[in-house]
Amino acid sequence: MTKSRTGGRTGRRPGHQSTRREILDAARQLFATHGYSATTIRAVAAAASVDPALIHRHFGSKENLFAATLNFPEQAAPNVLAALHGSPAGLGERLTRTYLGLWEDASTREQMEILTKSSLTSTEAMARVRPVIARVVGQIRTTDLPGPLPEIGFQLAMGHLLGVACVRHLTQAPPLSTLPFEDLVARVAPAVQLHLTSGQSPRA
Amino acid sequence: MTKSRTGGRTGRRPGHQSTRREILDAARQLFATHGYSATTIRAVAAAASVDPALIHRHFGSKENLFAATLNFPEQAAPNVLAALHGSPAGLGERLTRTYLGLWEDASTREQMEILTKSSLTSTEAMARVRPVIARVVGQIRTTDLPGPLPEIGFQLAMGHLLGVACVRHLTQAPPLSTLPFEDLVARVAPAVQLHLTSGQSPRA
Repeated sequence: MTKSRTGGRTGRRPGHQSTRREILDAARQLFATHGYSATTIRAVAAAASVDPALIHRHFGSKENLFAATLNFPEQAAPNVLAALHGSPAGLGERLTRTYLGLWEDASTREQMEILTKSSLTSTEAMARVRPVIARVVGQIRTTDLPGPLPEIGFQLAMGHLLGVACVRHLTQAPPLSTLPFEDLVARVAPAVQLHLTSGQSPRA
Repeated sequence: MTKSRTGGRTGRRPGHQSTRREILDAARQLFATHGYSATTIRAVAAAASVDPALIHRHFGSKENLFAATLNFPEQAAPNVLAALHGSPAGLGERLTRTYLGLWEDASTREQMEILTKSSLTSTEAMARVRPVIARVVGQIRTTDLPGPLPEIGFQLAMGHLLGVACVRHLTQAPPLSTLPFEDLVARVAPAVQLHLTSGQSPRA
C-alpha cells in the first residue's frame, strides 16, 4: 500500500493524532479482513507505513490496539438502547432495523465485520468485546416492556440478528444477500419479536 | 503438544492412512481454534509432528487440506434432510434439534466450529464450504410442506440457528451458554418454524 506521507522517517511525526488515526484505520481494515488472530502488529505497521515500534509505543499491545478500533459499538449502544424503548408491539421491528441497519450502512459495516469475525474466532478478542456488549445489556432493564426484558430472549434475538447478518454480509449467499432491506426487516422482525416478548406476562 | 508417537522420525511412516489421519486431526483442531486464514501448513505439520513437505505431498495445498477436513457436513446432510421431512407442524423443532444437536454432540462440535469460523472469516474457505451447503439446499425441495420450502425462509431459519450456536458455543455467554438443551430447542423452534412456514399457503 503506497501512500504519500508528510511525516519524517524518525520517531517524531507531524501529529500524534493523525498517526494514531492512520494506524487505527489500517488496523481496522486488517482486523475486518483477516480477523484478530491472523492480524499482526507487523502487518498493521506495514499497511500504515509506520515502524512497528511506533504501534507498540501508541498502543502497547495487539490486544489494546484491537480494543482501540472498537470505538464504534460504544457509540452505537445508545441506538440499540433507544430501539428497546417505545411500544412493546414494535420492539422486534425497531431492534431488527437498528441492528441490521448497522450492517447495511457503509460507514459502520466494516466495524460490525471486525467485531463479528474477531469475537467469533478469537477468545482473546471475545474477551475485549464482551465488556462492550455487557455494558449495553446491563442497561436494557429500562425498557417499556410490561416486565423486565427476558435475558435469554434478548440473547436469542441478538443471536438471530447476528446469524442473519453473517449469512447476508459475510457468506453473501443469495437470495438473502440481495433481498431489499425493507423486505429483510419485515421477514426477520416477527421472529425477533417472538423472542423478546415470549415469557412476558400481558401488560397489566 | 507432546504425544507418544510410534512413527519414526524419518520420511517413512508406518502407514499412509494413519499419517493422513494424524495430519487431518491436527488440521481440524487448528482450523477450529484459529480459523482458516490464521492456520498455516507449517503449523499443522508441527502439530502432527511431520514435515510440511509431507502435507504438500498428501494434500497439495492448504485449500485442499481444508476441504479434506470437511468430511463431516457431508455425512450430516442426510440428517438435516431427514429433519425437513415429516409433519409441517414439527418442522421448526426437528430442524432446530438436528442442527443445534450437531453443536451439542462432542463428536461433531469441533467440525461445526471449523466450518463456522472458517467460512465466516475467509472468503477462500467460504468458497470451499459453499458447494457443501448448496448440495444440501439443492435437495430440500422434497419436503412434506404443502408448497416448496421458501428459499429465503430456509436461509433465515439457518441463519437464526447459526447465530444461536455462535452465541452459545463460540462466545459462550451465559445464560444462553448454560441453558439445558431441551429448553434451548423449545425456545428457538417457534421462531425457526415461523421462517420455514411463512409465505406457505395452507395445506390444500
